[in-house]
Amino acid sequence: MAQLLKGAPVVAAMNEKNAARCAALAARGITPTLAVVRVGQREDDLAYEKGVLARCGKVGVAVRPFVLPAEATQAQLLEALAGVNADRTIHGCLLFRPLPAGMDDRTIRAALAPEKDVDGITDGSLAGVFTGTGEGFAPCTAQACMEILDYYGIPLEGKRVVVVGRSLVVGKPAAMLLDRKNATVTLCNSRTQNLPALCREADVLVVAMGKRGFIGADCIRPGQVVVDVGIHVNEEGKLCGDVRFAEAEPLAGAITPVPGGVGTVTTSVLVEHVVDAAQRASEKE
Amino acid sequence: MAQLLKGAPVVAAMNEKNAARCAALAARGITPTLAVVRVGQREDDLAYEKGVLARCGKVGVAVRPFVLPAEATQAQLLEALAGVNADRTIHGCLLFRPLPAGMDDRTIRAALAPEKDVDGITDGSLAGVFTGTGEGFAPCTAQACMEILDYYGIPLEGKRVVVVGRSLVVGKPAAMLLDRKNATVTLCNSRTQNLPALCREADVLVVAMGKRGFIGADCIRPGQVVVDVGIHVNEEGKLCGDVRFAEAEPLAGAITPVPGGVGTVTTSVLVEHVVDAAQRASEKE
Repeated sequence: MAQLLKGAPVVAAMNEKNAARCAALAARGITPTLAVVRVGQREDDLAYEKGVLARCGKVGVAVRPFVLPAEATQAQLLEALAGVNADRTIHGCLLFRPLPAGMDDRTIRAALAPEKDVDGITDGSLAGVFTGTGEGFAPCTAQACMEILDYYGIPLEGKRVVVVGRSLVVGKPAAMLLDRKNATVTLCNSRTQNLPALCREADVLVVAMGKRGFIGADCIRPGQVVVDVGIHVNEEGKLCGDVRFAEAEPLAGAITPVPGGVGTVTTSVLVEHVVDAAQRASEKE
Repeated sequence: MAQLLKGAPVVAAMNEKNAARCAALAARGITPTLAVVRVGQREDDLAYEKGVLARCGKVGVAVRPFVLPAEATQAQLLEALAGVNADRTIHGCLLFRPLPAGMDDRTIRAALAPEKDVDGITDGSLAGVFTGTGEGFAPCTAQACMEILDYYGIPLEGKRVVVVGRSLVVGKPAAMLLDRKNATVTLCNSRTQNLPALCREADVLVVAMGKRGFIGADCIRPGQVVVDVGIHVNEEGKLCGDVRFAEAEPLAGAITPVPGGVGTVTTSVLVEHVVDAAQRASEKE
């Protein structure tokens, strides 16, 4: 029976801290404020936005929506971002992606002021993650993995960590954040040979492939810590991860559930970043 | 007896290619030009500069030295970099570091135009290395490792590569460049437990710790490819690497010598970057 690394207590602890920091900023007349920039009405975006709004409201972060019609042009989106950049009462910006066809992702990302990039999508943030200099913000999901490991006191220094999946949203930044904790990190990809044996070498296994149920018992060493970043809907309409939980849980020492694990923590990280951004902006003035 | 992965033939092939590209640019009236910015007269800098001048001269890259006195101020250095940035006949810039005490490395790095950052020191270049989007330039030594592996046809896709050392100049960017070749990369650091066993798992072992003779026979699996990035002077005044060559060579399948290995290739990578920068600039006009 593995220890369940649930997101809820991590979120509760983060909420408490974020609320206290918001109150301290409010006392100085500052309301940490998040711009949410969305093009169209994609269902995924709306669901995530709803979660963000609720979480922000709970701790005292204001949200300013910028909603463009699905047929908006790139120029209109750039104009919206310029407005966000120029507005000193806005501290962070969440831009929903993927962008509609016809918009250039790189151009749009480059248009956001790095200091407001609380979701880690600009080059400035990615360079900061890579160099460890603390510039910008790490992608929220990658950092959510770290918050869970930290909350549950999972040792990382000197430990073997295997990260399966190398996206810029999770795998690669998670590898860098883990390296910063002095873990020995192996970054796997779809061409990796003998993946199960390699996974079993890990003290901590972080799975972020985006392939439903890809990781099974053959990849798990008894006692291992397993962090499952995947989120999918199975044939029965239930949420599940990249890891086959029923196989992994009896073997693992600790494991994040899906739902109720990493995904739960992501919006709290976003909120924390908005508070950080407001704090940093206030220190510059 | 290991195959010796010497730098000289890699350099010869790169020189030939760089010279042909310079000739093609010259035919269009463009002389790829490198600014060399140096503060003071440190012996290491002068030796490297000499190598750069010779290599540039050979292939048709012009060099423009900007030499500041050892007692120069940060403002003076920033002014020199502004001059480099503004000069459209300069395509790349090599800035010698470490900078003198009293200068802020981050401020200085940020002052260089990313498109002229042929030595991979700006955030733009580091973000490009991390994201794999081809922006900026990789640090030359990290890319020199890749040039050697490529020249000698060492397979990387799906292979295990262990990188020992995680500096921003070599280890981390090398890990990213290897990942881009679909290798499975493990990044080790000074806290890594059971380093010898981990090293022996690698198909390719890249050693960039900066510790003389740190890696010995216990870290080498028979047949392995070993890339030694270290460069030190031993008690007898001879150059040597991070790997104890006499121990490793009989075991390894292939190994880079020190001297005559990675270090030899670094300036050719720099020259290639200047040619790349000139080409990119000409395509923008």
